[in-house]
Amino acid sequence: MSNPSSPAIPLERLHAILGPKGLITDADAIAPWLTDWRGRFHGQSPAILAPATTREVAAVVALAQEQAIPLVPQGGNTSMVGGATPPANGRALILSLRRMNAIRSLSAEHNRAVCEAGVILSTLHEAAEAAGRRFPLSLGAKGSATIGGLVSTNAGGTQVLRHGTMRGLVEGLEAVLPNGEVYEGLEPLKKDNRGYDIRHLLIGAEGTLGVVTAATLRLVPALTRTATAWVGVERPHDALALLRLLERRFGQTIEGFEVIAGDCLGHVLSHIPGTRSPIGTPSPWHVLIEFDLSEAADGAQGEQRILSALSEFLESGRGLDATLAQNEAQAQSFWRLRESISEAERAQGPALQFDISVPVEAMPDYMVETAKAAQARFPGTTASSFGHLGDGNVHFHVRAPKGTADGPAWIARQGKEISRFVHDAVEAAGGSISAEHGIGQMKRAELGRLASPARLWAMRAIKQAFDPRGIMNPEKLIPLASEG
Amino acid sequence: MSNPSSPAIPLERLHAILGPKGLITDADAIAPWLTDWRGRFHGQSPAILAPATTREVAAVVALAQEQAIPLVPQGGNTSMVGGATPPANGRALILSLRRMNAIRSLSAEHNRAVCEAGVILSTLHEAAEAAGRRFPLSLGAKGSATIGGLVSTNAGGTQVLRHGTMRGLVEGLEAVLPNGEVYEGLEPLKKDNRGYDIRHLLIGAEGTLGVVTAATLRLVPALTRTATAWVGVERPHDALALLRLLERRFGQTIEGFEVIAGDCLGHVLSHIPGTRSPIGTPSPWHVLIEFDLSEAADGAQGEQRILSALSEFLESGRGLDATLAQNEAQAQSFWRLRESISEAERAQGPALQFDISVPVEAMPDYMVETAKAAQARFPGTTASSFGHLGDGNVHFHVRAPKGTADGPAWIARQGKEISRFVHDAVEAAGGSISAEHGIGQMKRAELGRLASPARLWAMRAIKQAFDPRGIMNPEKLIPLASEG
Repeated sequence: MSNPSSPAIPLERLHAILGPKGLITDADAIAPWLTDWRGRFHGQSPAILAPATTREVAAVVALAQEQAIPLVPQGGNTSMVGGATPPANGRALILSLRRMNAIRSLSAEHNRAVCEAGVILSTLHEAAEAAGRRFPLSLGAKGSATIGGLVSTNAGGTQVLRHGTMRGLVEGLEAVLPNGEVYEGLEPLKKDNRGYDIRHLLIGAEGTLGVVTAATLRLVPALTRTATAWVGVERPHDALALLRLLERRFGQTIEGFEVIAGDCLGHVLSHIPGTRSPIGTPSPWHVLIEFDLSEAADGAQGEQRILSALSEFLESGRGLDATLAQNEAQAQSFWRLRESISEAERAQGPALQFDISVPVEAMPDYMVETAKAAQARFPGTTASSFGHLGDGNVHFHVRAPKGTADGPAWIARQGKEISRFVHDAVEAAGGSISAEHGIGQMKRAELGRLASPARLWAMRAIKQAFDPRGIMNPEKLIPLASEG
Repeated sequence: MSNPSSPAIPLERLHAILGPKGLITDADAIAPWLTDWRGRFHGQSPAILAPATTREVAAVVALAQEQAIPLVPQGGNTSMVGGATPPANGRALILSLRRMNAIRSLSAEHNRAVCEAGVILSTLHEAAEAAGRRFPLSLGAKGSATIGGLVSTNAGGTQVLRHGTMRGLVEGLEAVLPNGEVYEGLEPLKKDNRGYDIRHLLIGAEGTLGVVTAATLRLVPALTRTATAWVGVERPHDALALLRLLERRFGQTIEGFEVIAGDCLGHVLSHIPGTRSPIGTPSPWHVLIEFDLSEAADGAQGEQRILSALSEFLESGRGLDATLAQNEAQAQSFWRLRESISEAERAQGPALQFDISVPVEAMPDYMVETAKAAQARFPGTTASSFGHLGDGNVHFHVRAPKGTADGPAWIARQGKEISRFVHDAVEAAGGSISAEHGIGQMKRAELGRLASPARLWAMRAIKQAFDPRGIMNPEKLIPLASEG
């Protein structure tokens, strides 16, 4: 802990704004929020500010601006890139949005919910379900991740193919700008050409341009019937061909399309008890597909159409094996395989993990060629990938050589070079070094190294204009001058 | 003309960059581009710069920045708000993108076209059609409007309900920033969380933050079979109920849904030769609907399903009459009624026209109540509206009292007060004073009057950061300090 009674921090004025519940200076209460959930980033902070209203957020930001006190907005603290942990110098205060957890309104008729920043994703899922609707974005951290954080990081997940990222689900936004003014844009206008799109600027800005306090979110009809398929293929190119075939046949009803390298599945089967492959034929690559049959006039007929599309695909010679889950329990067991990959890969041993995107049609080559090239360049490593092929986004893992006992030492020794290798290949394919996790602290130097001068210039110009004193989420996202 | 040989303009250096074809100083050749297509905004400029490549645009912008020469980017000069005509002081040069008119690539397989800024919309339509695809955005000025202008104004049209505005169709962007750097973002990445979204910032920025030079655009399957319906209703509330019914039944295959006030249709029937109402029952409001049956397994069956949905609607008591076009010629005659409204309204007499949006569910009340209130407040006027109800966007007209001979004098006398009245009602409904036309010169003062301090602060901060010398499309979009 740095000095909690530092005279630089106007505790009395903060107390007057926030009240006793909204100002936390007890070191034990602060400690859990100083480290990210994967335990890779650690910071220091003398206080957590926990406003209960947008007005309180505005007052805190205005005061912080006046006193040049850095603020680190924080929701569930589930960032994958250290985006919500405070800097090590202990100067910044954590601005927790968790007390702003009201669902201000939810309308099934208008398919819409207005949520405050601190609403936890699974809470919104439950509220939408109770109204016969759903919020079609989910991810592993749904029990902790908050709406404000999901907006600020433009979160993704396995339903992006059909429903888009958070950006596509936010119909309106309320935020406190760094000058303490409230941007009131919650009205869900489908068309609005009043100049620069402030909403899109704040989505994905990782709290560096202001604090998201509430969002108007799009809901969609509940899933009342689904069909879940598992297909084995020789190459990811065949998986993409399958996706295109299914899109032609089933259009917008493809709810999920995940591709999994054979060795990733192998690790799940080795490390996760009670798992088995849905298909008997050993396959270098696997595909998990979910179809929404809720709107189908006849669900059984819908399943028949899926089966005949899969048969056609197998007969074309591009597929090795395919099966359709016979019931809900089996469908869940298919999804469990996908959802256990991260855990299984951790059990398998140390690895570097990349969250990258390239144009969809370039992805099969990227997956195959970059894995081959990485293995050749870093002998003993194995590389493979899994994820959202239809979005052009996969999670690409480079695993330490077998028998590497000290993972952190291996990462310290090889991490930078392997990262550069993988990212250079992304850059060569016209892709992004952060598809869905953001930049945070972790990827800032790589962004500085790889981003074009135009992109860096624009980002720095905006940051400087909005936040010249650098108080909004310092040391995140924007590369240092020395980094690009 | 201001002085074309002004020593302040480095003609020789411009000539060196652009060559003889790219530098136009002949007053007669410049004249047509000094006035907007509706003849309401006039400016002066000593030269048109017409680069042929992105590199030339970058060199021109860098030179203009160095010399503090204002530039007015111009495509087809079809702005509805004076967004592409130069200021009156004659200091700005027109930067015409019309020579950059290559479709760099078009892929039917990937449903994508990369177009330079000067490609004319109808040219893209034809190219897409030749490849068995279509670009699903169209508007009256399609024979002149260019891709760069459509991107820079986030253009709309009658297909937004299904396909979104230009913002939703731009998958990648190339632009020259005010510092002369080229932002290279043409890769169509579905997921990219590398910080601030520069693409979304430039879309709709009306050339005030840089010059769009090319865009990657999404194509969709060709329409091979459509069905076109006309329905009469008592109130716009019934039209919205019809839309919701049809959405439940036909989902994403509703290609267009336009609502038309009875008096607007009356003016079409009075002024446009050869037109007649599709339905016999006199109706206060009309609805034109287009369905895409291209994907339907059986087109005739698709029409039957539409007919039974319309019957159901009529039987529910919310509809007065309905008909389905019997053939393509009849469908075209239905659309001709919609597309002739602007012409008919002009023939009818002077009017003030507003392009406004509110949340969809608030639109029926807005249409009815604001018309009533405007007529009461400005005796002798008539007010009504037509347009894109499903997008929450209509064109709202307030017509001069019958017998008003001098339209411009009436507008000079009453325009400001009526505009404020209509816009105040938009603001009260949480709406936008510019749904699809942008701000340009025309709405700048009203934006300054009505925009929140937060919105104005953010827009001015971005503009100042990107373009501190104010050379990019001066006197457009950003309200003056005296205006808010």
